[in-house]
Formats: sequence, C-alpha cells, structure tokens
Amino acid sequence: MQPRVDFISLGVRSVDASRAFYVTGLGWPVHREVPGEVVFIQANHGLILSLWKADQMQAEAAVDNPAGVPCITLSHNVAAAVDVDRVMAEAAAAGATVVTAPKTQSWGGYTGYFADPDGFRWEVAFNPTWTVDAGGKVTV
Amino acid sequence: MQPRVDFISLGVRSVDASRAFYVTGLGWPVHREVPGEVVFIQANHGLILSLWKADQMQAEAAVDNPAGVPCITLSHNVAAAVDVDRVMAEAAAAGATVVTAPKTQSWGGYTGYFADPDGFRWEVAFNPTWTVDAGGKVTV
Repeated sequence: MQPRVDFISLGVRSVDASRAFYVTGLGWPVHREVPGEVVFIQANHGLILSLWKADQMQAEAAVDNPAGVPCITLSHNVAAAVDVDRVMAEAAAAGATVVTAPKTQSWGGYTGYFADPDGFRWEVAFNPTWTVDAGGKVTV
Repeated sequence: MQPRVDFISLGVRSVDASRAFYVTGLGWPVHREVPGEVVFIQANHGLILSLWKADQMQAEAAVDNPAGVPCITLSHNVAAAVDVDRVMAEAAAAGATVVTAPKTQSWGGYTGYFADPDGFRWEVAFNPTWTVDAGGKVTV
C-alpha cells in the first residue's frame, strides 16, 4: 500500500450549508456535484475534498459518529479492482480491522474499508472514472 | 484561502501502536518523529500524514473527541504569519467559527484553528521550517 491519500471525505449534516461555506464563502472550485448529496472540490495536487451527506456516508463507510467513529474517511485509490483486494489484505496483515470487505458500490466502484488502530477509516477504492493527470488535476 | 490541505493529523491513543501499523506494517516512510509524541509520514505530493498523541493534539487543536469533535485536523499552511491572520479572517467571513485565535505555538509556529459548519477543524499554520519542493517533497 503506497503512502497516498486521494480523497478526504467529510460527512456533513447539510451539503448546502457546507457548499455555502467552502464554495460560496471561500471560493473553492467545484469539480463535480450531486446537489444535496455530495460536492467534490479539487484541492491540491491529486487531492479531492469531498463534502458528503453524513447519513449516506455513514451507510457506505460504516462510520457512526454517535458511537465515536469520526465521520471522515481518507481514501486510497488504486488502478484496478484486484488491487483493492491486495491492499485490503496488506492492511489487515499490518493489523488493520476490516470494516467492510471489498464490494461493488452502487456508483460503480469497488471499495473496501478498514480501520486503523484508533478506528480512523480508510477506504481502498477502485473507481473506473477516476484519473489524475501529470499536473495533479483529478477527473472523476 | 486557497483550496489546499498540507497536513492531515490523526489524534492517536498510542503513537507506538500507530507507528507499528503505518510504518512497520504498511512500510510508509517516516519524515520526522518525536518518539511517543508524533510521527510525520510523507504521503503524496506535498502532503504529510501526522500521527499525533491525542492528548497533546486535543490541547493544541481544541478538539474533544468525547464531546463529539473528531480528533482529526486538516492543516492549511501559508508562507507568513500575516497570512494566518488573513486566512482566519476570510474563513470567519465565510461563516467559520474561530476556535483558537492565531497565536505562537511552543514549537515555533503561528497557528489558528477554525471549525467548518459541522465542527471539522482546520488549522491555518505558518511553520517557518516547512517547505515543499517542486516535486512535492515536504521538509519540516
């Protein structure tokens, strides 16, 4: 598993309120969005900040803020579905807890989630639509 | 405020346990560390993953996990102390809550913290020792 973070996803109560802060207020650029559900902001080289409606994110990422698991995930993207299985196995061998075994998600990706020693969630993701060009610009 | 994340800091119960997972287990490279207190891992272009003893981090970052504020911060680094004041003012004008007004920290930096609409913490930091070269390699 390479030392790399590709998405930082924040689980938010209101996508509109978060959008008003980050996009309207701070002027950060929207890469892509599904109104009321998720906003992807292109941050620095290769990195996407994702503002994701918390209840949807909680279901997919198996985070549970009331139970003390922060509703935030760090995503590590790989080039193929088989790499998701490999990286999840590497993480488990290193001591991670597998939270969600890799599976095909409704949006077309293949992802698994593991928890580090403190419970912080990592997503290992193959997203067939995700690319990063040489300049660090992401396309989802 | 530019759309940029420079550090992701995870507040961990045991730096040794986290180090065993990320460094020994996954093989991720240590950039710098203070044993038992903090480990900085060079991740992708320009980005540092920081594993920071939670109680120290909670004191500096004013996060409080038992009260529901995730012990994780996203840091936005700037080139001068005056830029910290400017960016904190921009964030406040955009609707952020100022958690800690900018001040000089014991490690020599000048930082402030704000909370986004969901309480997620951003640090705005001037660290006189922090540089990123053209290839994205960070020096702290």
